Amino acid sequence: MIHTTSRVLVAELRQHVGETVSVSGWVNTLRLQAKMQFVVVRDHTGMVQVTHRRGGEGDETEAALESLTAESAVRITGRVVDNAIVKLGGLELIPESVEVLNRAETPLPIDEQTGLEHRLDWRFLDVRIRPEAQLLFATQTTFEQGMREYAYSQGCTEMHTPKLMDTASESGAEVFELGYFGRSAYLAQSPQFFKQMAIAAGIDKVFEIGPVFRAEPSFTSRHATEFTGVDVELAWITDVEDVMRFEEHMLAHGMAKVAEQHGEAIREVFGVEVAAPQVPFPRITMAEAQEILRGKGWDPEGRKEDLDPEGERGVAAHIKEQTGHEFVFITHYPTSIRPFYHMRPADRPDLTLSFDLLWKGLEITTGAQREHRYDVLVKQAAGKGMSTEPLQDYLNAFRYGCPPHGGLGMGLGRVLMVMLGLDSIREATFLFRGPNRLTP
Amino acid sequence: MIHTTSRVLVAELRQHVGETVSVSGWVNTLRLQAKMQFVVVRDHTGMVQVTHRRGGEGDETEAALESLTAESAVRITGRVVDNAIVKLGGLELIPESVEVLNRAETPLPIDEQTGLEHRLDWRFLDVRIRPEAQLLFATQTTFEQGMREYAYSQGCTEMHTPKLMDTASESGAEVFELGYFGRSAYLAQSPQFFKQMAIAAGIDKVFEIGPVFRAEPSFTSRHATEFTGVDVELAWITDVEDVMRFEEHMLAHGMAKVAEQHGEAIREVFGVEVAAPQVPFPRITMAEAQEILRGKGWDPEGRKEDLDPEGERGVAAHIKEQTGHEFVFITHYPTSIRPFYHMRPADRPDLTLSFDLLWKGLEITTGAQREHRYDVLVKQAAGKGMSTEPLQDYLNAFRYGCPPHGGLGMGLGRVLMVMLGLDSIREATFLFRGPNRLTP
Repeated sequence: MIHTTSRVLVAELRQHVGETVSVSGWVNTLRLQAKMQFVVVRDHTGMVQVTHRRGGEGDETEAALESLTAESAVRITGRVVDNAIVKLGGLELIPESVEVLNRAETPLPIDEQTGLEHRLDWRFLDVRIRPEAQLLFATQTTFEQGMREYAYSQGCTEMHTPKLMDTASESGAEVFELGYFGRSAYLAQSPQFFKQMAIAAGIDKVFEIGPVFRAEPSFTSRHATEFTGVDVELAWITDVEDVMRFEEHMLAHGMAKVAEQHGEAIREVFGVEVAAPQVPFPRITMAEAQEILRGKGWDPEGRKEDLDPEGERGVAAHIKEQTGHEFVFITHYPTSIRPFYHMRPADRPDLTLSFDLLWKGLEITTGAQREHRYDVLVKQAAGKGMSTEPLQDYLNAFRYGCPPHGGLGMGLGRVLMVMLGLDSIREATFLFRGPNRLTP
Repeated sequence: MIHTTSRVLVAELRQHVGETVSVSGWVNTLRLQAKMQFVVVRDHTGMVQVTHRRGGEGDETEAALESLTAESAVRITGRVVDNAIVKLGGLELIPESVEVLNRAETPLPIDEQTGLEHRLDWRFLDVRIRPEAQLLFATQTTFEQGMREYAYSQGCTEMHTPKLMDTASESGAEVFELGYFGRSAYLAQSPQFFKQMAIAAGIDKVFEIGPVFRAEPSFTSRHATEFTGVDVELAWITDVEDVMRFEEHMLAHGMAKVAEQHGEAIREVFGVEVAAPQVPFPRITMAEAQEILRGKGWDPEGRKEDLDPEGERGVAAHIKEQTGHEFVFITHYPTSIRPFYHMRPADRPDLTLSFDLLWKGLEITTGAQREHRYDVLVKQAAGKGMSTEPLQDYLNAFRYGCPPHGGLGMGLGRVLMVMLGLDSIREATFLFRGPNRLTP
């Protein structure tokens, strides 16, 4: 028997009591008893029990249900019956026809006990059977939607900048190289140069969400060779404070939207609270941060210019203690550990007008005011020992009236990881890419 | 003198008559007369005239204005004066201070006469000085916003699928190869396989806007080696008609939003009308299309299985004549010219349940119902002479209950090109990439 009714989502079944409808989804559980067959079918909106009394020989429905396997894709047409005894919403479906659209092989290659790496090998099944993963991508969608809403409200133009470049972008290291019609091309480590070109092109505020590529042989829980970057660049800023203000409001707007749409589910599934953070976020200079850390015994040899992960956690803990805030901007990084294009204060060439944003001690953003004056930029590049020749296309953008500007780059996976309390960025990405993982 | 007022956009000056404000923008034109200096300053919202009566020796404002060059980035602080004689909005700015934030070199490397390729070398300046280009990216932003609104309203989840793959995806040809920690990786020609994996992962409707890469040595006005793809994949479809319906509504929603926000400006700048197209779009099978074309003398030798550009234009002209519609879905492409994963009707293994969408005779989309049954898929791959071993990760997604599904891939640049009547996709892209162009 071919179904002739259109699909009804499980969450909407209550409105169809007494009617015959079709439900499409996966076999979540099977209980095949002597007299009764119970099959729980799951779609992306919920689960419903299908209840069938065995009819014996010639009962096609009985035979079809008997042949089911866990996670098979099925379409079941039947009557929706109100039955207070049934745990799943007090409803059951009395089947009239059962279609197996795609039978799952048995056994499934993973289950709840499977470790992370093996789960990633079967990521499609891992995401399908774990409610956390389903909620993660719903959260990601809503969060992006919220950030875009804020960006649009501020007059941002959404740009798509090239990922293929003719020179290894910001630095020669950690860049993927590919063959390109008889020469070499490189994958962009960030949209940095191109979003600055968009500023030079008169785009007032630039917004981009897209892939960035890092050829880093890092195996930590927070690094990936390909991840989704959220990039913003703002023209005509007064100072780097304009960039930090944009970011804290963008994050707060995105998180408010997540809290509103998924707050309850996130509490239930991940056991964490999501709420819009208070703005402004606390700010602390790198010098202040290091002084505080050293007072607590960090880096006893006094050699570190940058914060290591331990230092980042230490600063975050201090700020949390002092202000109760989970976010902190660390500002004024030393010139020595920042790229040549970060602007430096006129009276402090050893510092940059840059920042990192930490959330619960994890770096989620780097940002800065950019040096927009051609002469200064060339000097700063030379000072870093860089040859300006391969940079000429980039540098040209500053020769014909590039306005003051600044921006930020944020790792989407890292933000989701912190937001939902995940152990690894592998869990916050649909199909993770690392030095040892290029599949599935 | 340092400015102490905050920036006012040119479009908002009317609200500040009598006040002293700062305007930030580019020097659009300079008229330096014996007694008067006139400078037109442009920001992304409009242009304003700055009017200064020369004060002679010691007049710092006079000296600053005298030193300006076209396209320099300036901040001018002055009093807003109502002056009906002034053409630009009946307003002028009487300057009190002039800051040159970035002086443009002279002469500019391009002007209105410069040809396309040389303009692309200086794309940031090309985009800045041409109102068409500014409007293009505003239109792109609004169009994407509209498509996303529709996608969200239909329950789509926005996914970011990897661009790095371990095998050359759909076919071995036209794929970029890169070094990846001692082995090879490939750039995704489309998110095809990964968005299908998201369907297998229980994501009900997938939406992605991101870069796709084609190592094609094509030099036409409609091909690029990297472009922005708009991808949709829908689970539990009844047939390919569901996919076409989604697309025509998504396009209509996006275009309605563009018409509403930029219709007037587009008419003025590009001389074309944008309006939401009527749905449903006309549909015609490939067999019917070819019959009509052959009746008009196309492909006299009867050898062509696919439509060439001439054929596409011919079908579009016929449909336009018959129905008045600019869009047409061509359906049921022969199996021989479609990939192995397109579903075929049970009774017609020589055809696929696929479509192309043409707009004004240009292909902007390919879509299809996908074959979701593992056995059939393996058979179809083998029938195309493909080795299934490198496809195993992909094929695995169909072994454990992958539901019926279908989707589409649309080239964003092509759509904008047709929408705004541009001659080349180079004009519809911020930084074009082709076999001969990897810069800036």
